[in-house]
Amino acid sequence: MSVQPTHPSPDPAAGAAVKAADRAHVFHSWSAQGLIDPLAVAGADGSYFWDYDGNRYLDFSCQLVNTNIGHQHPKVVAAIQEQAAKMCTIAPGFAVDARSEAARLVAERTPGDLDKIFFTNGGAEAVENAVRMARLHTGRSKVLSAYRSYHGATAAAINLTGDPRRWPSDTASAGVVHFWAPFLYRSPFHAENEAQECERALRHLEDTIAYEGPAGIAAIILETIPGTAGIMVPPPGYLAGVREICDRYGIVFILDEVMAGFGRTGHWFAADHFGVTPDLLTFAKGVNSGYVPLGGVAISAEIAATFDQRPYPGGLTYSGHPLACASAVATINAMAEEGIVENAAAIGENVIGPALKEIAERHPSVGEVRGLGVFWALDLVKNKETREPLVPYNASGPANQPMADFAAACKRGGLWPFVNMNRTHVVPPCTVTESEAKEGLAILDEALGAADAHTV
Amino acid sequence: MSVQPTHPSPDPAAGAAVKAADRAHVFHSWSAQGLIDPLAVAGADGSYFWDYDGNRYLDFSCQLVNTNIGHQHPKVVAAIQEQAAKMCTIAPGFAVDARSEAARLVAERTPGDLDKIFFTNGGAEAVENAVRMARLHTGRSKVLSAYRSYHGATAAAINLTGDPRRWPSDTASAGVVHFWAPFLYRSPFHAENEAQECERALRHLEDTIAYEGPAGIAAIILETIPGTAGIMVPPPGYLAGVREICDRYGIVFILDEVMAGFGRTGHWFAADHFGVTPDLLTFAKGVNSGYVPLGGVAISAEIAATFDQRPYPGGLTYSGHPLACASAVATINAMAEEGIVENAAAIGENVIGPALKEIAERHPSVGEVRGLGVFWALDLVKNKETREPLVPYNASGPANQPMADFAAACKRGGLWPFVNMNRTHVVPPCTVTESEAKEGLAILDEALGAADAHTV
Repeated sequence: MSVQPTHPSPDPAAGAAVKAADRAHVFHSWSAQGLIDPLAVAGADGSYFWDYDGNRYLDFSCQLVNTNIGHQHPKVVAAIQEQAAKMCTIAPGFAVDARSEAARLVAERTPGDLDKIFFTNGGAEAVENAVRMARLHTGRSKVLSAYRSYHGATAAAINLTGDPRRWPSDTASAGVVHFWAPFLYRSPFHAENEAQECERALRHLEDTIAYEGPAGIAAIILETIPGTAGIMVPPPGYLAGVREICDRYGIVFILDEVMAGFGRTGHWFAADHFGVTPDLLTFAKGVNSGYVPLGGVAISAEIAATFDQRPYPGGLTYSGHPLACASAVATINAMAEEGIVENAAAIGENVIGPALKEIAERHPSVGEVRGLGVFWALDLVKNKETREPLVPYNASGPANQPMADFAAACKRGGLWPFVNMNRTHVVPPCTVTESEAKEGLAILDEALGAADAHTV
Repeated sequence: MSVQPTHPSPDPAAGAAVKAADRAHVFHSWSAQGLIDPLAVAGADGSYFWDYDGNRYLDFSCQLVNTNIGHQHPKVVAAIQEQAAKMCTIAPGFAVDARSEAARLVAERTPGDLDKIFFTNGGAEAVENAVRMARLHTGRSKVLSAYRSYHGATAAAINLTGDPRRWPSDTASAGVVHFWAPFLYRSPFHAENEAQECERALRHLEDTIAYEGPAGIAAIILETIPGTAGIMVPPPGYLAGVREICDRYGIVFILDEVMAGFGRTGHWFAADHFGVTPDLLTFAKGVNSGYVPLGGVAISAEIAATFDQRPYPGGLTYSGHPLACASAVATINAMAEEGIVENAAAIGENVIGPALKEIAERHPSVGEVRGLGVFWALDLVKNKETREPLVPYNASGPANQPMADFAAACKRGGLWPFVNMNRTHVVPPCTVTESEAKEGLAILDEALGAADAHTV
């Protein structure tokens, strides 16, 4: 599906120069600047990228789970080059072909009547604007979001987030209330099966709404399948239940599909697995695999109508950026033409899912395997009986050594893993071939020995 | 400096299709969706863009004041195409040549020791992160910003903004306090000259700090020269005075150069006019003329050191995006090689400034002309004596008719104007030629007749 990876000659001196300039001037996300040692990347293609020292990595992280179409898909590269030659940028107030067509292609795929698209530069801004729309549509201020979630790092988005990245930017007054979503393996509700977890999670949500005051709640936002927080596929009936609760109280239902959307789960949107249509759906990443920064909100007819005669008070200079939109058009068309979403589904069902379950049986450190499509998590534990996480929540330094050992073992084997807390996620491109998936799973299998060494 | 504009054959049917798809699916920034009639744009080059009906417009708006290098600069287009062929995207955690080089080129130009660059997708996120850095660096929460300002539309950024776009998203609890910055023509301090305006504005700021509690104030953020709010060049001594106040109280001084930076004022940064170095400087727009979404924060050594051993809690998937960084490298290099910043300074001093002053004398609607480089405002009034604005603050509908008439007259003449409240801004590309500037000024001169008709 993608061209063969190229293997440039190593050039360690060039890599050292890139890294030296990086350390001199680049301030990195989420990092203690003095403690990082970034790998200098020389190139990327398909499911692989490589450094300047001749090391090639199979990308089981999709960077930050965004390169759903793999690296350097030729059709998307060509579309960027063509649009660059034609028109790199134009203000959001104009109509422009690439923007119109990207909106049409997204709207064609979003569930239900989510047919108006507000484009942003990424997921955080999409969430910011979805929440703004919900608040203005309802005239209410509170927003409910889940622990074990990530929604972005601008002020409103980080306050919605349910992981430790929120803490330093916490604003108790931001009008956000966190609740617990279903997660049977570590059930907040002491449930013993999926049906019970679903029922209790819905009851918990209802209770939280009752005690927060339904008339003051603008929105409930959920990742359809939480991503960085652990790929917890919700039990059957949960999202439909949340939809029903939202309808009952006039609450806007926002599904965040920034990570789960555009093929990752083996459908265009994760919501398609559950037959649920939210009022607002946020997307980014997979919409164009991050080849150009792009995100957006798909808006229901009812919420769009709120802003038909009344100005929507939000915007950005690069909303509907032509280069970003052209790359989305090419990405979506290539994914459709080449059966890339179907490939993700098939690889998940026939290759990754079965292999991970088999791996889990053999490794004492693998507590649970969960996921679908090319969206899988391995929940690593000290002990399968107690389910104690392999490292404590939000561990760093020596306390995180077991996960650091595991990640290092993956990299030594030629696999670039996605690692968060006590988990590794298997999130290759939707274009991954069976042989690439098997290659990566074999490396993972061996690297899990480093995690097993820390079990008790 | 730029290639000659091309003149495609009109194709009204294609334009109608683009517009129909836009109205079906694109949700526009800052707009009542049912009341807009977006122009379908077919192409752009240098200082011009054109529609599908054969109309060409001289772009005196630079879109949203971002195309400092003009449309479709061949070196920047080529750089985007080359980087697209090489590597479209890679996660922020890696070191990559385009990102390292963009950071180096920006750091080389920022004032003082602002040598670490945190890249974002645009200006709003730059402001969000600058404020987060200031709060964590000081351990304080309040931020002071000015009325008559714009800082972006994500939650923290919009709360800092001092124009009506803030109101619908206002969070009284966001820790923002607004104060008044100097603006002699409509002096908040009843001053009679610049020295007095400066002295009184600094006294007002000191008083505000005293009553808000200096020990609780993390930062003061100012646009070096406020942009959309009216291009009020601060009086000599004001910014140096703010710098001194910040130093006295341990307050972080943030200069927002999203609009004023990268050549707009005839220097690389507007701060260069005043010899002032902030602790944090935000940028976007001109850094790559918006060819690919990009923004960032330039960080002082002292603030960077805060996050040397302690993780900086902020980030985004597309921080330091390779395609965006490659376009910034090409933009900055082209601006340096072709003397584009110097051109902006010369055109402002020799062409635009003198012409606008002459225009102001002849037109009863022009209350004041102010600016420098390619960054000028005409403050339109009903009456030069009373200085009553031509339209009320935040006018819409019939109350805004005088400005609508003026804008329509510009467009009929082939000029695309930047219009905000009772002002038009003359903000052509930094690459604008003398003859283009004169062409635009002549159209503006004639269009001002439509504003004059509303004077009393």
